[in-house]
Amino acid sequence: MSILVLGTTALDTVKTPYGKRKHMLGGSAVHFSMSARLFANVNLVAIIGEDFPQKHINFLHSKGINLTSLIRGDGKTFRWEGEYKGDLNTAITISTELGVLSVFKPRVSEEQRSIKNIFLANVDPDIQMHLLKHMRSSHLVGSDSMNYWINTKRTALLKLLKMVDIYVANDQEARSLSGEHNLIKAAKALRGFGPKMVLIKKGEHGVLFYCDRFIFSLPAYCTEKVIDPTGAGDTFAGGFMGYLTKAGKVNEKSIKVALAYGTVAASFNIEGFGVQRTSVLTMPELNKRFNKFRNSILF
Amino acid sequence: MSILVLGTTALDTVKTPYGKRKHMLGGSAVHFSMSARLFANVNLVAIIGEDFPQKHINFLHSKGINLTSLIRGDGKTFRWEGEYKGDLNTAITISTELGVLSVFKPRVSEEQRSIKNIFLANVDPDIQMHLLKHMRSSHLVGSDSMNYWINTKRTALLKLLKMVDIYVANDQEARSLSGEHNLIKAAKALRGFGPKMVLIKKGEHGVLFYCDRFIFSLPAYCTEKVIDPTGAGDTFAGGFMGYLTKAGKVNEKSIKVALAYGTVAASFNIEGFGVQRTSVLTMPELNKRFNKFRNSILF
Repeated sequence: MSILVLGTTALDTVKTPYGKRKHMLGGSAVHFSMSARLFANVNLVAIIGEDFPQKHINFLHSKGINLTSLIRGDGKTFRWEGEYKGDLNTAITISTELGVLSVFKPRVSEEQRSIKNIFLANVDPDIQMHLLKHMRSSHLVGSDSMNYWINTKRTALLKLLKMVDIYVANDQEARSLSGEHNLIKAAKALRGFGPKMVLIKKGEHGVLFYCDRFIFSLPAYCTEKVIDPTGAGDTFAGGFMGYLTKAGKVNEKSIKVALAYGTVAASFNIEGFGVQRTSVLTMPELNKRFNKFRNSILF
Repeated sequence: MSILVLGTTALDTVKTPYGKRKHMLGGSAVHFSMSARLFANVNLVAIIGEDFPQKHINFLHSKGINLTSLIRGDGKTFRWEGEYKGDLNTAITISTELGVLSVFKPRVSEEQRSIKNIFLANVDPDIQMHLLKHMRSSHLVGSDSMNYWINTKRTALLKLLKMVDIYVANDQEARSLSGEHNLIKAAKALRGFGPKMVLIKKGEHGVLFYCDRFIFSLPAYCTEKVIDPTGAGDTFAGGFMGYLTKAGKVNEKSIKVALAYGTVAASFNIEGFGVQRTSVLTMPELNKRFNKFRNSILF
């Protein structure tokens, strides 16, 4: 089973109360891949600059990620620098350098065009749309975004939402795009924009899933080891979409299990800087915590 | 089975986006009683002023609440006025008039002194301690507090915590008293202050329970009908302590079921102003939603 993810490959500089790491491998597509790879063959669609270290390419390759559509552009790799303080729930962006991302026109191979499961991780909604139109008929399309695009490219984003099956947003984004404070009302409003399923990530407070037939919520996996939350949302999405791809069907049962896998995958992400922890994560480890999580919320 | 609750009986004036109600029956002990009464005989220990309407007394009596230790003092009833805006998560206090509460010295009847399950709802920790010392040996003591006491009577509160079994706090209070941002770390720190069990209420994000043997968390019951959240935390505590009292034992299983009953009881509270909804709540209704809640988080 294959999944295709469009997003960023980045060089992240992150400071948290536990330390600072410079120019780490990061980006939405990379974090997504680290958990999705445990369930499916991941095809990464992204752009890197001339300065992107070969060791990161070798690393992604060693993790079984298909890099056919990872292109190198003229210019610098997308860079993000951020800091987390206090409860590490919110990142303070110090700087963003788009670099080659500003000229990114994603293309995939003929073979990849037929991949049925697609995740459009956070990039410019025009780039997301560009790829989506390039694909053949899909089975399941998920998309993520961020407040920056909600504020600056609302029309393009709303156009995209009409074409996706699952919209993934964090609570702030869901509130901002829908104009609703109550998250169920927000999810309902987002559903009205097109996507049949709406998934709201609430960080340490877990996740809320909304579709016409049912509402489902899960708390986060309890952990006090929070080193660096960067990429937790993408890791969540990778576990969620990865499991659905492996399951081969999208129904109430598979969605709930997928949400739990996403939750547990994200809990590993935050235990290390960048992809430090998720890059060495194994399926037995993930399953062990999945079972622990399942037992921890039974009553 | 009997439970004794010490707290406030108040006249609340509340404004939310759904309207305004003046001088409603409210207070921590009243909200607690509305859910606890479904599980156990509730003995209310509180003070009212000369202005407290007889109809409220008749009402509490009609709900089967034992009012032996509801005393009337010289002066005015405790009054609180607040407003909720936006997502209705945080109350803005407009005014607080302590009235007779400032001279409250709780006493209970000889018979009530032997009640084994006690909840010290939010009042001055000195008043909580005064009652606790007045009681005979107890089986299970829960206590709640608020930021005001954490800031102004920290020493008295810490002294009290050494003598209680369960400390119930909301997330802000837990962070403020423990000095820890991460809620699991906060719960651990609060555990270190004495109480064997720590219960952190996170409003729309559910609840986190901590004891040495296990950690348990539940999301909130999903509802978009939020009319007035005043008293939701006390209603939660009433369902939680009420169930444990009825169960007659405190173990992992009964605690988890009690937390779910508390969650579901609180979801009814927010659907109406004051005790409007909880005062007419029946056990079959509560059980129906309990089952719905249980199914909604299974995966």
